[in-house]
Amino acid sequence: MAAASVKPALLLKDELDIVIPTIRNLDFLEMWRPFFEPYHLIIVQDGDPSKTIKVPEGFDYELYNRNDINRILGPKASCISFKDSACRCFGYMVSKKKYIFTIDDDCFVAKDPSGKDINALEQHIENLLTPSTPFFFNTLYDPYRDGADFVRGYPFSLREGVPTAVSHGLWLNIPDYDAPTQLVKPRERNTRYVDAVLTVPKGTLFPMCGMNLAFNRELIGPAMYFGLMGDGQPIGRYDDMWAGWCMKVICDHLGWGVKTGLPYIWHSKASNPFVNLKKEYSGIYWQEELIPFFQAATLPKECTTVQQCYLELSKQVKAKLGKVDPYFLKLADAMITWIEAWDELNPSAGDSANLTNGSGK
Amino acid sequence: MAAASVKPALLLKDELDIVIPTIRNLDFLEMWRPFFEPYHLIIVQDGDPSKTIKVPEGFDYELYNRNDINRILGPKASCISFKDSACRCFGYMVSKKKYIFTIDDDCFVAKDPSGKDINALEQHIENLLTPSTPFFFNTLYDPYRDGADFVRGYPFSLREGVPTAVSHGLWLNIPDYDAPTQLVKPRERNTRYVDAVLTVPKGTLFPMCGMNLAFNRELIGPAMYFGLMGDGQPIGRYDDMWAGWCMKVICDHLGWGVKTGLPYIWHSKASNPFVNLKKEYSGIYWQEELIPFFQAATLPKECTTVQQCYLELSKQVKAKLGKVDPYFLKLADAMITWIEAWDELNPSAGDSANLTNGSGK
Repeated sequence: MAAASVKPALLLKDELDIVIPTIRNLDFLEMWRPFFEPYHLIIVQDGDPSKTIKVPEGFDYELYNRNDINRILGPKASCISFKDSACRCFGYMVSKKKYIFTIDDDCFVAKDPSGKDINALEQHIENLLTPSTPFFFNTLYDPYRDGADFVRGYPFSLREGVPTAVSHGLWLNIPDYDAPTQLVKPRERNTRYVDAVLTVPKGTLFPMCGMNLAFNRELIGPAMYFGLMGDGQPIGRYDDMWAGWCMKVICDHLGWGVKTGLPYIWHSKASNPFVNLKKEYSGIYWQEELIPFFQAATLPKECTTVQQCYLELSKQVKAKLGKVDPYFLKLADAMITWIEAWDELNPSAGDSANLTNGSGK
Repeated sequence: MAAASVKPALLLKDELDIVIPTIRNLDFLEMWRPFFEPYHLIIVQDGDPSKTIKVPEGFDYELYNRNDINRILGPKASCISFKDSACRCFGYMVSKKKYIFTIDDDCFVAKDPSGKDINALEQHIENLLTPSTPFFFNTLYDPYRDGADFVRGYPFSLREGVPTAVSHGLWLNIPDYDAPTQLVKPRERNTRYVDAVLTVPKGTLFPMCGMNLAFNRELIGPAMYFGLMGDGQPIGRYDDMWAGWCMKVICDHLGWGVKTGLPYIWHSKASNPFVNLKKEYSGIYWQEELIPFFQAATLPKECTTVQQCYLELSKQVKAKLGKVDPYFLKLADAMITWIEAWDELNPSAGDSANLTNGSGK
């Protein structure tokens, strides 16, 4: 079986950017050097732009701080969050590559049960380059992995699968818990290595974490907006969740797949649960209305591009979530600004229902 | 964490029956002795009723052959398949217990990656006694397992979960492939131990295999009809699939959960792919219409018992699948007969919309 496995990581060397949001020196890259060094990094510096972020030697990177974001986007920079890792989505926008891998700077190389270092990026690429199966559940998990297949009773017409838009990886050590769970279970560590990749079924929402995430930017990039979080906003730590819910509704509409499971990274330290509680408080409350909203959301079949879908979703957010809190009116506007900015920076990336003036950059 | 884990296997000693369909001596029970001996077995003998099936000493069992089935059910015995493991559902009907575990006689005790024998029954019971989460996907899999929980972004209102109706276990060694896949990959073995249990999301169908399966009979028993297969029928090897599709639609309607994943059993030998192809041929063809039918099936909210749901489903089968093949008209009638027979043998088990005459047995 080993002989049959491809080495896709090398293939995508010029087609994938690694996006890292950070406020500190990127020493964590040392551990990732064997895996990341061949790739181009896009570093989005959060917080004080006068601070210098040190990047270990040998890495190929571009770095954007808040001043850069303001300069590049002008008034549209308002859609990019400040003092929150949601700022990472600026990196998705300025990338010119087909694929994105994004990772937090407190995430290290994990080991598989045999003790071998896990090449997270390679696994993400495998996930993205093989199809997804959102229309029917395969009990032996990803049927495209070596040694696996579709089981008895799986319709043959569905075995070609559909394009994979997103690969959502997991975390050993510190699990991605909300503040209440952190407070209740301060010592819980994730030690269970689950050797599986699976497609999140069509019509099913899931909590997408931005810590260890890859996606096909060409396919789904414009839906990967991480919202308005942090500085000046009533909420934090829902950036990736928001993107995940929007993205999933759009993937379901356009017939694309989302995988979750492998690869694991080693999440080194828990963030402060008291600080997190303050950031999350409104989100914990609001999500009880957001989930039913997204579960019920449908897009008209006239929406055939991600941009069209996303703008339609922003209308629905304004119409239906505005009454939950005025924040969602602001967020709905920011969703439109995001698409306008995306199309400005990516002029050939598709029709956005003529909302941009096409002036480019 | 070990201290916190319960030993549910012992608790359910008097509440669970093990149902085994067979045509041969049950030597395979020797390997299961440490795990199965405390439980009551219901053996459903398929094929020639004059043959004597040997059961190893020390096991507590009752055995039914075709003559017994005909005697107990009279004309209604027509709904129980002959010369097909679908006959096992007769065992579900005559059981008086709350839970059922059913296993094939070519399934042995598997080992976990540490080399320890897997107590499949204990894991099934854990799955059944903890809730399911069909309304939102948890990326760390079953949140009720030791060392796991709901991740950030999981709505708190959904964390109580819902009752678990079915626990679907998997297979190491010989995977449960259809005949075409068996023919194409004769040497493929499942060696991947995936340490996960997960809820099949609401609205998602899956291929339920009857080889290693447990369920809450009190909750979902009447939906666990394995159809008309084998002798005199144009199809085989779709018994468990049929039950799985019907059961899942009903669980989704009634708000119950279905889990899949652990436990593994060791599936010792592949059945003959040429024989299987003959049995499966029509099913492979028909399932392309069956899956869309079940995906679109909805039940009126007046259906509040499994029996009512099942009878409603039989009407829809007759109305919509009759045109696929006359076989489905016969199957729809058999579904009604099954419910009538179930209610006769289980007179207090619920209202079946007054289709039975209530004479009992």
